Parts: sequence; C-alpha cells; structure tokens
Amino acid sequence: MTARTLSLVLIALVVSLPSATAAEGGPPTGFTAEGAASLAQLEAEFDAALDPALLAEWQDRLAARPHPVGSPWGRENAEFMAGLFREWGFETEIEQFDVLFPTPKARSLEMLEPEPFTASLAEEPIPEDPSSDQVAEQLPSYNAYSVGGDVTGELVYVNYGVPEDYEELDRRGISVEGRIVIARYGRSWRGIKPKVAAEKGAIGCILYSDPAGDGYRAGDPYPQGGYRPAHGVQRGSVADMPLYPGDPLTPFVGAVDGADRLPIDEAPTLTKIPVLPISWADAQPLLSALGGPVAPEAWRGALPLTYHLGPGAAKVRLKLEFDWSLTPAYNVVAKLAGSERPDEWILRGNHHDAWVNGATDPVSGMVAVLAEARAVGSLVKTGWRPKRTLVYLAWDAEEPGLLGSTEWVEQHAEELTRKAVAYINSDSNARGFFHAGGSHTLERLVGEVAAEVDDPRLGVSVVERVRAAVEVLGDEEERARLAKIDGMPLYPLGSGSDYTPFLQHLGIASLNIDFGGEGDYGQYHSVYDSLAHYRRFMDPEMAYGVALARIGGRLTLRLSESELLPFEFTRLAGNVDTYVDEVRGLLDAKRQEDERQNRWVREGLYDLAWNPADKWQAPETREPAPFLNFAPLENARVALQAAAQRYRAATTAWLASGEPLGEEAARELDGILFRTERDLTRPDGLPGRPWYRHYLYAPGFYTGYGVKTLPGVREAIELRDWDGAQRQIGVAAEVLGDLTGSIESAAKLVDPGS
Amino acid sequence: MTARTLSLVLIALVVSLPSATAAEGGPPTGFTAEGAASLAQLEAEFDAALDPALLAEWQDRLAARPHPVGSPWGRENAEFMAGLFREWGFETEIEQFDVLFPTPKARSLEMLEPEPFTASLAEEPIPEDPSSDQVAEQLPSYNAYSVGGDVTGELVYVNYGVPEDYEELDRRGISVEGRIVIARYGRSWRGIKPKVAAEKGAIGCILYSDPAGDGYRAGDPYPQGGYRPAHGVQRGSVADMPLYPGDPLTPFVGAVDGADRLPIDEAPTLTKIPVLPISWADAQPLLSALGGPVAPEAWRGALPLTYHLGPGAAKVRLKLEFDWSLTPAYNVVAKLAGSERPDEWILRGNHHDAWVNGATDPVSGMVAVLAEARAVGSLVKTGWRPKRTLVYLAWDAEEPGLLGSTEWVEQHAEELTRKAVAYINSDSNARGFFHAGGSHTLERLVGEVAAEVDDPRLGVSVVERVRAAVEVLGDEEERARLAKIDGMPLYPLGSGSDYTPFLQHLGIASLNIDFGGEGDYGQYHSVYDSLAHYRRFMDPEMAYGVALARIGGRLTLRLSESELLPFEFTRLAGNVDTYVDEVRGLLDAKRQEDERQNRWVREGLYDLAWNPADKWQAPETREPAPFLNFAPLENARVALQAAAQRYRAATTAWLASGEPLGEEAARELDGILFRTERDLTRPDGLPGRPWYRHYLYAPGFYTGYGVKTLPGVREAIELRDWDGAQRQIGVAAEVLGDLTGSIESAAKLVDPGS
Repeated sequence: MTARTLSLVLIALVVSLPSATAAEGGPPTGFTAEGAASLAQLEAEFDAALDPALLAEWQDRLAARPHPVGSPWGRENAEFMAGLFREWGFETEIEQFDVLFPTPKARSLEMLEPEPFTASLAEEPIPEDPSSDQVAEQLPSYNAYSVGGDVTGELVYVNYGVPEDYEELDRRGISVEGRIVIARYGRSWRGIKPKVAAEKGAIGCILYSDPAGDGYRAGDPYPQGGYRPAHGVQRGSVADMPLYPGDPLTPFVGAVDGADRLPIDEAPTLTKIPVLPISWADAQPLLSALGGPVAPEAWRGALPLTYHLGPGAAKVRLKLEFDWSLTPAYNVVAKLAGSERPDEWILRGNHHDAWVNGATDPVSGMVAVLAEARAVGSLVKTGWRPKRTLVYLAWDAEEPGLLGSTEWVEQHAEELTRKAVAYINSDSNARGFFHAGGSHTLERLVGEVAAEVDDPRLGVSVVERVRAAVEVLGDEEERARLAKIDGMPLYPLGSGSDYTPFLQHLGIASLNIDFGGEGDYGQYHSVYDSLAHYRRFMDPEMAYGVALARIGGRLTLRLSESELLPFEFTRLAGNVDTYVDEVRGLLDAKRQEDERQNRWVREGLYDLAWNPADKWQAPETREPAPFLNFAPLENARVALQAAAQRYRAATTAWLASGEPLGEEAARELDGILFRTERDLTRPDGLPGRPWYRHYLYAPGFYTGYGVKTLPGVREAIELRDWDGAQRQIGVAAEVLGDLTGSIESAAKLVDPGS
Repeated sequence: MTARTLSLVLIALVVSLPSATAAEGGPPTGFTAEGAASLAQLEAEFDAALDPALLAEWQDRLAARPHPVGSPWGRENAEFMAGLFREWGFETEIEQFDVLFPTPKARSLEMLEPEPFTASLAEEPIPEDPSSDQVAEQLPSYNAYSVGGDVTGELVYVNYGVPEDYEELDRRGISVEGRIVIARYGRSWRGIKPKVAAEKGAIGCILYSDPAGDGYRAGDPYPQGGYRPAHGVQRGSVADMPLYPGDPLTPFVGAVDGADRLPIDEAPTLTKIPVLPISWADAQPLLSALGGPVAPEAWRGALPLTYHLGPGAAKVRLKLEFDWSLTPAYNVVAKLAGSERPDEWILRGNHHDAWVNGATDPVSGMVAVLAEARAVGSLVKTGWRPKRTLVYLAWDAEEPGLLGSTEWVEQHAEELTRKAVAYINSDSNARGFFHAGGSHTLERLVGEVAAEVDDPRLGVSVVERVRAAVEVLGDEEERARLAKIDGMPLYPLGSGSDYTPFLQHLGIASLNIDFGGEGDYGQYHSVYDSLAHYRRFMDPEMAYGVALARIGGRLTLRLSESELLPFEFTRLAGNVDTYVDEVRGLLDAKRQEDERQNRWVREGLYDLAWNPADKWQAPETREPAPFLNFAPLENARVALQAAAQRYRAATTAWLASGEPLGEEAARELDGILFRTERDLTRPDGLPGRPWYRHYLYAPGFYTGYGVKTLPGVREAIELRDWDGAQRQIGVAAEVLGDLTGSIESAAKLVDPGS
C-alpha cells in the first residue's frame, strides 16, 4: 500500500533529532561484550543463509497471477507460504477473518456536455508484460469502499482535493455543492479526497493520475521506461482510515464468526459519495472541456492543456455498483517460541495480498520476510533457539485498508498488549536508499544495524548513503537537521501499512523498513506491477531484497537475543523536543498569519493586489489565535530528557560491567521497557477517533498517510479549537509523564541509586 | 523588445533600498512651493489633453500592417508620426541611418533520424485575427544576426542554454561539441544561448517556446485566450548585445554615409553558429526523438513527453541563408526648445519598428508617447514654453538590437554628453502594475509621480497597487525589502530597450516605464501581436495607455520645469549599499560553496548520493575563492551616503526658503546634477567590452537583458578572476568617489557652509 518517492529519504529527516553520541565501537545497545560476540556469530550465519535466487523464485510464484483478498491465487499463496514456514520449523497456522470487501459490478463514467465522451476505464495489456493480459483474473480499476451511486453533475477541478484547495476555490467564488469533483492523486492519502469533497457538498468524486507526478514527466512510460502509461490507473482504498482501519463493519473487534457487525449502511468509514479512479488518458478529455477560471499556477499538471477550474462546461455522469459480500482473508502466522522469555514476542510482517499481481507491492517485501524466516529456520536446524519468541506474519487484505493485520490485532489485543515487544513491518522494496520509520525508542537500534549493512552496489553502509544523499541533494534545512544527529534518522509513522494497528491502536513499538527511490516506480496499484516490470526497473538482482532481509533479520535477532531489550530514550526525548517546538511554532505562525490577514483585509490590500478581472473574494477578518499555556508540555519534556539520560547512564554502566542482573529482574526490566510505548497511549483514544490511541504519532485526520506528531495538540490547533488544544496540551503532558515514570523505574531497577 | 511577465513587479524589488523619508505633502523634489503650484496647474491641463480614443486611433494606424525596419509601412509610420509632431508644434526631422539588417533567403530544419520530419516554420493565420493573414508583408520567423550555414548533427537538449546548464551536462558526461543544441526560450536573453552553445563547440542552435513558460500552461492559447498557440514563434535578435548593441558594423559611431564599417565577417556581434527559433509544435517531434538520460527535474517543460538530454537519437539538419543588405532606419526626432535652459535636454522615446504588426510591442508604448507630445503641444498652443528643451523620439530598428537609438546616440554623442539631462523610455504597455527601472538618482522623482497617478480600474495610486501586490503575492524576502522604503521601488536597468545607449554608453540618467502583468502576454514577437489581440487581451480601453502617458508626461514636465533638477542621492546611496553587500556576499557564498564542494569530493559523497545507474561524474576540487580587500568600496559607500545626506539637507532648506539661487548658479547646479550619472562611467568601459561604460549598471555578459549591478566587480567574481575583482573594487571605489565629489560640489553651491 505504501506509495514511495525519491523524496522519502529527505522526508525522513523532518523529524530527526539531536541525541547523545552513539555507542561507537562498543557493543550494540542491550548487549554485553560477551553477548555481542555471540550475536556477531549468529548474524554471520544468518547472512550466509540468504540467497537472492530464492527471493526471485518466491516472487515468481507469488506474483504469477492476480491475488487480491478473496482470490483463488491469494489463498494458494497463503497456503504456499504456510508450507514454507512449517518446513522451516515454525509453528504455523492460517487464521481466517471474514471481512467486508466490495468489488465492482458496474462502472461507468461519461461526459454528457459539451461533447460526449465515455471513459475506457481499461488498462491495456502490454505485449512485453505477459501478466498484464490476465484480464479475467484482474479486479478492474476501482476504489474500495466507495459507495455505489448514479450521479450527474457539472465537473469542478479541485487540484489535490485537500482542505486548502477548497479555500482557493472559495476565494474565487466556486462551490462544489451538487457537483462532481475531479482531483489528482498526490499530496494526501486518496481517501481524504472524497471525504473532503463530500463535506463540501460534492455528489461524486473522480481521482486521476496526472503525469506531472506519476507518468511521463517523471520518466519514460511503461514499457519503454517504468513510469505510468497513458491508461495506467491507481486502484486503492478510500475508506476513512484516519477514523479506523480494518473491516469497516467490525471496529475494535476481530471479524470472526459471531462478531458484532455494523449494518453496511451504518459503517462510518465508507465514503459518502461515489468515487472512481481513472487514468490520465481518460481524464484529459474531461479536463480539456472545463471552463471557468484558469487554475492557479501550483494546480497545473503536465497534461498538454490549460487547466481550468470549472464548474462546467464539462457535465459528467458517474455510475458505480458494487457487490458488498463478505470475503475470507487468510493471515499466515508462524511462531518460534522463545527459549528463555517466551512471553516476549518479536513480530515481523508484510502483507501478501495485492491489487493485481503486485510483484513490487507487496511481494518484493514479502519475499524478504520469507528469506529472513528461512535463515532463522536454518539457525534453528543447528540447534539454536531464540531467547524471546519470534512471530512471522503474512497479512491478507492490507490493500483495502489493513484488514488482515487490524482484525488480527483486534482479535488478539489482550495477549499482544501483554506480550508484544515490537512489530517490524515492510511492504515493498526496490533499489535505492534505506528508509526507516517508527518508534524513536528504537532509533538507536535501527542506526546500529544500518551502520553494519552495506548498500549492495556501492559497498558502503546504507547509513552513509542516506547521509550523503541529504548532504548533496537536500536543502540547507535538511542538512542542518542531519548535522544534529549521528547515524540513521527514523521518521515518525503516520499510516499506510500494517504497523498501524500495532503502533497506534495498542501502543506496540513498531518499525517500517524498506529500500527505494532508484527504481522507476510508475506501476503502483496497476496491472503493470508485474514481474516483467520488477525485473527491469526495480531490483533486477534482488540485491536490495537481500539487503532488506539482512536489516530485518538483525533487527529481529537483536530484539530477541539482547540481554536487555534495546530500547533507548534519549533519541525519543530529542524527537519530543522537536515536536513540542513544532506545535508551539504552529500556534505562533497561525497567530501571525491571522494578524497579517486581518491587516490586509482592513487595508483592502487583497483587492489591490489581485487582478480586478478575476473577481476574487477577499477573506473576512477573524479572531487571531490566542496564546496558550505550554508550561505542562515544557515541564514534561524536561523531565523526560532527564530520565532518558539517567536510564542511559545506568544501563551503559551495567552492560559494561558484564554483571548479570538476574533473570527475574531482567524480565521485569524488559517488561517495563517494551511497555513504555503503551504509556504513550490513552484507552479513550484521540478526540473524535477512539480507535487511535497513540498520543505521539497518528495519521492526520485530513492527510491520511501523513503523520501528525503530538496529534491531539497539533490537530486542535489546525482546526482552531483553542480550548481543545489547551486540554490536549494537558493530556500530552500526562502521557509523557507516564513514560518518564516508567523510564525512571527502569533506571532504578538497574541502578537503585540512579 | 521587452519581454514582460507577471513577476516584474516583484523583480523590481530586488534592488530596493532604505532611504530618508519622502517629501510627504511638501512640494515635489526640485520645486519651491510656488513652482509646485504652477506645476499642478500645468499637469491638470496636460491630463485634460489626453484622450484614449486617439491612442486607439494611432494604434490602429501604426499596427495596421507589418512594419519592421526597412519595410514600406515602417517608413510610412515614421512619416505619419513626423507629421503629427509637426502639427503639434515640434521642430521635427526624420533622421536616417543605414544599418546591417539581415533577412532570410532560405530556412529549413529537418530531422533525418530516427525518423524524417520537416519543421513547418510557419505561423498559421487565424481567422479571428485578420492581420495574421498579411503573409506577404510578414518577415518569416528567424533570429536576426544569426550567421547562415548548413549544419547536420546529433541533437542535445540544453534547457535554457545558460552556462550552468552546461555544468549539469558535464556532470553527466554529455558534450555538445560538433552537435546541434535545442534550448528553450527564457531565463536569459536569447542571444546568450547561441553564444554559450558556440563557446561549448556546438555547430547549430535551435530555440523554441516551451508551453511551460509561454503557451498553454500559462493560459488558453490564442485565439481562445491570448497565450502563444502551437505554431507561434518568438522572433528576435541574437546579436551579442552584451558586447555592444546597434549596427554590428559600426560600433561607437553612427551608421551614416561614409562611416567606417567593419566587413561583415569581422563583425564581432554576429553569432558564430546558425540559430533558428521554432514553435513548440515544431519542437515536439525533435524532443520526443531524443534519447540519453532523462533531463533533470527543473529542465522539464510542459510538453506531453519525457524530456531527455540526448545526444541523438535525433539527428537534424539546419540550413539558413540570409540577405545581408544595408537597410535604411528612420528615427523621428521632435524638439521643443527650452525657454530658459535650452541646453538642458529632457528626452522621451519609444521605438516604432515591430517584428510584425506589433500592436503591443512597440505600438502600445509609442502611442502613449504620442499622446504625451500632443498634450505638450496643446500646452504650447496656449503660449506656454518648457523651461528646458524637450526631445521626443520614435526609434526605428530597435527589434534587431537597439539600432535606431544606438546609432543616433553614437552620432550625437558629444552634444548629448553636454546637454542630455535624462532619457525616459517606454517600449510596450498593457493593463496591470506599474513598473519602473532606471537611475536611482531619479527614484524619488518616480515615486512622487507614481503616488499621484491612479490605477485606471482601482482608483488608488499605482504605487499603492505595487506595494499591495508585494505584500499579498510576494514572499517574505520581498516584503522585508519593501518595508525598508517608502513609495515606489526602481529596479536597476540591464538592457533590452532603447535606454541602453543613453545610460550605459554615455552615462545619461535614464528611466524605463510601463504597465503590465494583467494581460495575456503570449503574442511576443509573433504575427499574433496584433490589434485583434491587443483589444481583447491587453488594454481594451487604452486606459493603461493613458495612465502611462500621465506618468511619462509628469516625469518629463517635472524634469523640464523644476527650479532645480530633481536628482536626489540618498536613494542612490541606499542602492549602492545593497550592491556592495551583494558582491561581498557573492564572494563569501562562492568560498563556502567551494569549500563544501571540495569536502564532498574528498569524502566521495557525490558518488554515494547519486544513482549509480546514472554514471554521474563528480566535479574536481578547486582552489576556494580568496578573501579580497573591500575597504575601498566600504569607504566609498560611507562617503557617498554622507554627501547624499548633506546635499539633501542643503537643498531642502533652500527650496523651503523660496529664495532663488540666481540663474547662473542654478544652471551651474543643474549641470553638476545631471552629469553625476557621467561620474559613474569610465571612458574605457568595462573589461572586455569598452562600449559599456557604466560602472553601476550593465547587462550581464552571460544574462543579456538581466542587470549586473557593480558589473566590473560582480562579473569578475562570477568568472573567478580574483585579481580582476580586486582591481575592479578599486575602480568602482573611484567611480563612487567621483560621484561623491560632484554631490559635495552641488551641496556647497547651494549652501557654502555645508
């Protein structure tokens, strides 16, 4: 499900942070010198068991046919993988959930005025890509969880269809009320676009891939190059995932037999209006027919036409009908019980369902997980057992909205809350830069691993590549941020893949890892995400697949084998510092913007600056953002910083001493450590969306995938809910206080004098 | 000749400056209270004589047929205007120069590989635009002063074709040696593109209008909207104007009978390689056929294709042949002798030749000048005479390279040096914002005038509109700059219109004025620059033409009628401050960039950041820019600032006292004042280009129209000529010292105790 771009390596830096110096040369975090020596041996054996030929072989098999949730090939893939896990010595089961998964019965999009046009809605098979011709097994292009409908109306172009785009339309006096909007993909998660459109009164929503961001402007279209061709369509879910992911009918509980299910027409995450994704070839006649004002400079894409806003002259009819059946989703769950601390689980997963063939998304990530599990299995065959329990997971039904993972997490919430140490996710993989997002308690761990794994083509560590890219290709702000930390920056997680239920619903420390940015990534969620495409444009040698397995394997093994779980808090505290600064800055910026806008309105400057021919409407004055009391958050961050330093000093001294803590104390300490992520949650969840319980990281209510850190405070400020923002400052301070308390307990356990 | 964009109003601010407070409410600069009262009366009468219907009538006549230099309609226009001036009471003559003006005999552009294509090179007549069908009288699309030739080679796309674009190509190992380049218009003056291409070894140069900057991406193409249609071509000169403008055969002297003329093959301003401008419709097949690496993100235009760099697979043949005859150019010169100070000349001009019909360029500016002259003539009919001499000028042959004005200035250099107080230029005009560039000794004058003339549609002064636009549409840097000054900012002049010989060759204070930015400006130098286009998209009511005449008239009258010439130096000193800071900053930035690049090379970061598949070539280390001694310039600017303040205090006190200075002293003071601009020149000119004598303002050697302030110092730093830069710091300090001396003399004349 992950949409990936070249810029991800830079985005990662938005949230980097200062910290204490890394354990250079010393043993990895959580290990004594002796433990580190065994680990090195173990990792060498692990690496030796990785074979790119096997990754390619599994990919050939899994991506051979279309395999969305509910498809025969999807079920065969689940059984095939279960067989592999069993062969490698894992206790394996296929766990079924029955989920709502609508599929199209009828799709049509016609332009009625100013001239007739019928959209083809077809991705043409390409001779060079044999699987693109498996038409009978392909789901047609559509957006899952769009409601059906038959609507006719004038068309309005709304750019990316995010809230600020509607502010631009307002200024020009253009309303979408009773009209159909056409929005380009990009900027926000796709589900936000119909949600905002419906809030503004639109009756239908068309999404299209503009070649400016996804097509010929980026590179040669498929099959000459790997970029989206004229008829390529991006499928995808449009459920209101920022409300909750998973089966729309079973929030909070697993979609098993006998579960309480909402009636379909009460499911709040379905769209309010019909939505359909189309190619630029189908969009071009519609956009060409639009009249009204010329779109603002930043709204113009790469089609050879003058972008207009409408409304009209284009009038379109959009007709959609769906089969609203329940469909079985098959998760593969493979366990290897820990020999010493079996009730501490390290989880590693990737989804296996694809919109179509999915050679990149998800198979390229899935085969790395398989390779890791096989290598662990080969260690087991030598008599080794992990200290803590390992759980490998292959999720079904991720594409429609993280259903496999969410239902599983909801079903096993109680046990996971007690036992889950961390969840490591991947989703897709390609040549390029290493990206890692996740809980900052694990940033140091990730940095240590990334410093030891080399880029397959350049022979330097993946961290060095990331840092060089920021230096040479980044801007001054990104460079300055990088200079403040050593090693690998970890970006905070929003949503978009299966870590969400672990991290944001249960507060389980999570990571999301992949390589990418140097493939021709134009096949996303289309029939062209095929083996033929992957072998030419993504990672022909599976070299980055092996590199991902080396990293995923090390993360898993260090979490399972460490003497003391490798959680660390100075990096987290540094990030929290940044987030507190950001929300304060956001409020200040709002106030300044309000004051400036009010002055411009009072002085009539809008009317003087704008072209009088354009009939702009100046905004109204508004009450400027007030000052709020940030003292609780300020005090909380100072205390967190101090506790983090104390814990770090205590554990460093203890691990260097090599004196064991005693098994019972060690277990107690582990328990405190992995539950620190739970401290960052509240059982009632975020305001208006109780499923999301994490108070440090959440997907944005109006951005979707995009993260909002300190979401309670940040989104209240964004929505100008000043009372709410003040309350949320208090909640955030309490959450951080709980975390600080846990860290202090941990430090005291290691060193009662600390 | 001026290419104008919406952003000009913002560009103007690049050079704004702090200053003392304006004479708010007091009499205009250079006037006593009594003089100001007469002036107000005079200006009211002047305004009453302006009639938009007459502007439209003259425009209809002048733009009725194609009228480039040498055309029958061009000659008729000159005679028509001479008749008007005579009718209005001016002593008028048509002054002829015989100039080199090549016209095409043969033009062809073919693609030979990978598939045959022949460029149409034709601008199609448009039924809605009758004059576009005057094909027999139109010059075909071509670039004047391209050499002829017949060249065949692989094609390379070079973006805008400026020096930094070739650095990008170098990094990718792509050479243009022996190849033909295709460059898009924009960023630099067009003549720079073939000059740089030839320096790099290219054998031919194709220029095209990409719809990203000039076509459908900006707005609806003609005739639905006013933007450049598929087959629209931008004609224009490609002489090496930054070396010298005017007739390529007669630098420094007027192109009159018996003048020493260079042999054509020794004329240094002709291109070294053949050059041809084409439409995007003709460019698209060539660009589509290019292979090689995908062009960098910033190089991609708005055509529906993936931009590649080449070289090849496109192989093209470019064949050009010209008629190299001399052609008569007819300047119209209309004088009205001053009653009191006849040897002080105020000059006001606009060109009359057009590439084709030229309703916008130049006729929209020309008719404002005619309106001003007629209004002055109507004052004369009441018995009024100007105090100083007025000279109205209608230039021929501006389009091929400022020939009419340059030859006239060269021919009359001695007299102009003695008598010319200031030259006020315009070139084209349309609805929108008021822009003014020029000598900063006149910034206060321009600001006072602009504060008194209203925008025709909004009923507020044109200054208020400019300031509102910067506030609302500008960025923070532009806002901060504006906040430092009151009133109207004046941008420094590079080149591109007829002020150049006055300002940069003789050191005559000059201004360039126009309105624009709210028309659909897509007809530039094409057959579509027509009356039909102007009436729909530029200034349908001629309201901005009248506004320009009001401003031009006031500038002229205040220069001619003031008791003391309205030159003022604190604004100039403020600008000099900015320029000194800029050149210092430029050197520092070079040094930092050098040091960073050296570090990246040493640490191998380029190879880690770049995609290994792309075969980039890291640059080599280089000696970092040294520190230079800026003390002479620092001392000079401090002294200038002090003298400017002294002069301002002395004259303000004197004008407020109302005591006349005495005619002889007043004349002496005038003489010092208008010659201050001469102080900023050196007879030997700038390094390598002796025709350009101004040491504060020059067109960039590698930007063309774009200004370089303190050009001696700035360009030496840009070219990494450190010894030269140090020498030029000394010259610039001397130049400023001479100016300071003159200002001090002027102050002493007003107040011997100052």
